[in-house]
Amino acid sequence: MPLEAMQRQEPIVSESLHMSPDEFRAHAHRVVDWMCDYFANVEQYPVRSVCRPGEIAAAVPDEPPQNGDSFDAIMSDLDRVIMPGVTHWQHPSFFAYFPANSSPPSVLAEMITSALAVNCMLWVTSPAGTELETRVLGWLARMIGLPASWQGVIQDTASSASLCAILCARERFSDFAVNERGFAGGDKAGRMTVYTSDQAHSSIEKGAKIAGIGRENVRVVPTDQNYAMDVDALREMIEADRHKGMSPIAVVATVGTTSSTAIDPLRPIGEVARQHNLWFHIDAALAGTAAILPEFRWLHEGVELADSYCFNPHKWMLTNFDCSAMYCHDADVLKRTFSIQPEYLRTDAGGVIDYRDWGVALGRRFRALKLWVVIRSYGVEGIRRYIRHHIDLAQEFAGWINEDPAFELLAPHPLNTVCFRWIADGSLPDDQLNAANKKLLDAINDTGEQFLTHTKLSGRYTIRMAVGQTRTLRRHVEAAWENIQRLAAGLA
Amino acid sequence: MPLEAMQRQEPIVSESLHMSPDEFRAHAHRVVDWMCDYFANVEQYPVRSVCRPGEIAAAVPDEPPQNGDSFDAIMSDLDRVIMPGVTHWQHPSFFAYFPANSSPPSVLAEMITSALAVNCMLWVTSPAGTELETRVLGWLARMIGLPASWQGVIQDTASSASLCAILCARERFSDFAVNERGFAGGDKAGRMTVYTSDQAHSSIEKGAKIAGIGRENVRVVPTDQNYAMDVDALREMIEADRHKGMSPIAVVATVGTTSSTAIDPLRPIGEVARQHNLWFHIDAALAGTAAILPEFRWLHEGVELADSYCFNPHKWMLTNFDCSAMYCHDADVLKRTFSIQPEYLRTDAGGVIDYRDWGVALGRRFRALKLWVVIRSYGVEGIRRYIRHHIDLAQEFAGWINEDPAFELLAPHPLNTVCFRWIADGSLPDDQLNAANKKLLDAINDTGEQFLTHTKLSGRYTIRMAVGQTRTLRRHVEAAWENIQRLAAGLA
Repeated sequence: MPLEAMQRQEPIVSESLHMSPDEFRAHAHRVVDWMCDYFANVEQYPVRSVCRPGEIAAAVPDEPPQNGDSFDAIMSDLDRVIMPGVTHWQHPSFFAYFPANSSPPSVLAEMITSALAVNCMLWVTSPAGTELETRVLGWLARMIGLPASWQGVIQDTASSASLCAILCARERFSDFAVNERGFAGGDKAGRMTVYTSDQAHSSIEKGAKIAGIGRENVRVVPTDQNYAMDVDALREMIEADRHKGMSPIAVVATVGTTSSTAIDPLRPIGEVARQHNLWFHIDAALAGTAAILPEFRWLHEGVELADSYCFNPHKWMLTNFDCSAMYCHDADVLKRTFSIQPEYLRTDAGGVIDYRDWGVALGRRFRALKLWVVIRSYGVEGIRRYIRHHIDLAQEFAGWINEDPAFELLAPHPLNTVCFRWIADGSLPDDQLNAANKKLLDAINDTGEQFLTHTKLSGRYTIRMAVGQTRTLRRHVEAAWENIQRLAAGLA
Repeated sequence: MPLEAMQRQEPIVSESLHMSPDEFRAHAHRVVDWMCDYFANVEQYPVRSVCRPGEIAAAVPDEPPQNGDSFDAIMSDLDRVIMPGVTHWQHPSFFAYFPANSSPPSVLAEMITSALAVNCMLWVTSPAGTELETRVLGWLARMIGLPASWQGVIQDTASSASLCAILCARERFSDFAVNERGFAGGDKAGRMTVYTSDQAHSSIEKGAKIAGIGRENVRVVPTDQNYAMDVDALREMIEADRHKGMSPIAVVATVGTTSSTAIDPLRPIGEVARQHNLWFHIDAALAGTAAILPEFRWLHEGVELADSYCFNPHKWMLTNFDCSAMYCHDADVLKRTFSIQPEYLRTDAGGVIDYRDWGVALGRRFRALKLWVVIRSYGVEGIRRYIRHHIDLAQEFAGWINEDPAFELLAPHPLNTVCFRWIADGSLPDDQLNAANKKLLDAINDTGEQFLTHTKLSGRYTIRMAVGQTRTLRRHVEAAWENIQRLAAGLA
């Protein structure tokens, strides 16, 4: 077609459909100021949103707008409609769950990631995405003392990493027969069992369900008085299952359980796994970060016996969600478990990694960039100072609990999380204490000054104090303790 | 503990560990300018990175830095080390795969999301995250004509949505026995089969493997001359399988296949699904967006027969990855498939949605915010103009192909994607044309001026031209056609 004919038609959409470059620049600078104001003022918000169910939804129209609004109007609605419904994970008095870390360098990196907006599914779709991911996961492996031969990949969450590990176990055990013919089609599919402790994260059960293994084939191994896996019980359960004709395929150990940061003994578990040829996965979602400290490297004693391992820089290493670092002793099993090669994804690039074969999702954000920027910005020493700071604060908090006869510690507190309850004068039965501590936790959270969450340990309602927010200083932990003491005194 | 004792100790980490608020503000404004420069200069980069395997990795040290670097040094390395390895999905001449959309409002929203850094796993962990997600998915459902009763959730990718759908099918069929007892434990687990066309996305096979159904139990239904599913063949395959004692559980239809945007006939497929009690999932990852246009609402003819449906605003609706909108006719099946309730996630909030029960991952970013900002910014009409613009450009490009005797179209082009090949004077056999068109595609991509990718249709090497980049204007499509013609002439 001659060029003149092509040029007859005007552009169908002029560039005016989009915000102009100048408008974007002005709005983006304004958003930066909004972000800075947010960080400066975050302590003025109640940590946990005080809105009631349905309140935010009621302020958003049923119908989408037919025509575009100005960005000013949207920012105004952000403040008016959305912000009252935000629970402030970046508030320095956020002590709930485990933290969702972020940091100034991580936010800056996320800005760049969103501008580049590349899809890192294949090497060719952004070589830097792939190669930087390999490189920074190598950095992380060195930082926490993983074997140099292991290969890493960024998953979205530790839940997905657990699922990947269970699928690897299933496929290695069945010689990839379940992938090929399904459970119903293979002699070796059998009745598979997976072992993990009664303190393990719910994602292990979820993964076993997704993988077709089933909840009742997840063997819940009892824990000792420290909430760490009882390895003798593990061994007996595996042997009993073998005796019954079951097929044990995997054991999942936890370094830093969600309830109390209990630490399963990796070496003896790994030895049992080797003996019985089980896939050995380690879920160190929170606590892996602590192994960056030389004085906490013992957390990983025996890690070299594992087949796969996962920890979340997005929890306690200054990196925005989502960023879960997963490692495999033999990444070929992972790749073979997930690899599919349709024509439209075939490339000529040889000898490169295509990370889409390393997990569930095909598309992938350029998540390595924020890890690179965070590690470059803080350096290993800066990250160590940061982690030590939280651990020291948590230890100090535990000391206060310990010295106050109206409170008791309910679990060891090796890291940044302290499990405790109010016990009044020590004379009340557990059921009354459970109710009282629930009331106490609600009272703390209702003040809006802190946000803590709970768990149950040995049937006792347990308040958890997880110190891991990026901006938490000593004064925030002190204020929490004062508030807890004051509200507990009111209960008595 | 008395307050004086607590105050004895100085803060263990002064705020100086982190970038100061003033430093962050300065760096963030600088990053905004970097982003604006990137958008202004993106056309000066080769679209597909020209770096060689290992080149980026070689420029990143083996060892992590012990001490932090200045942000200036990091930005300088971003330009020097990382950018040469970026494939520019935001280049207006990116015509490869399907696009990874972004837009100025979406980038602004991502900035806010990264600053808030909330985890939207539960309602209570950010009520606005949950309620805005419900609301904007309601908007999207109205925009593309889905039944008002359906409930939506944001997944990361359409691959995950396909996995969710297959798991729902498995659990509904087995009355949740596979989740509970695994495949080996239930009478109703049987040998399940899933049906999808030979043009369906690879994620269907991947999902069936993950779910324990197996590759060979994914029945590949043939397609007609338009690459749409042959419904008679589907019906016959289901009946043959039933006859053999298999258990058909699901059919997945595609609206806009990855190779050629072929459109499976939803109503007849849905009728077969109803008749045989199969879960009916619709994968409209790219093309769902086109149904925002009244003149393309026919794409969804029969959609109300589906059990689940998915499309990706991150592909063609101006929204940054990841953002895949999934809908269920009966969301209770999805929730029951994934729900697990450990004590540490229990809340008192009643009558609210906890989206962590709606998919694989537990943690969730505040992804609804960017959708809200995008729809508010463009309005439904603005998005319509945007989609029409791409479709019109693709149709015009197809016209040029059609008028040039040295080229031929290889598939219908109802939407934004044109499948074609060079045929010289029409005398060459397919194997020679396959080699020549591979050479042509490499030559186009090696210029760095455009990036296109390929597929195979009926054994023919096929070049795909997918027009969907946010900043693509008519001149970019014209330049692509000129380059293609010029390079093809050189082949002859």
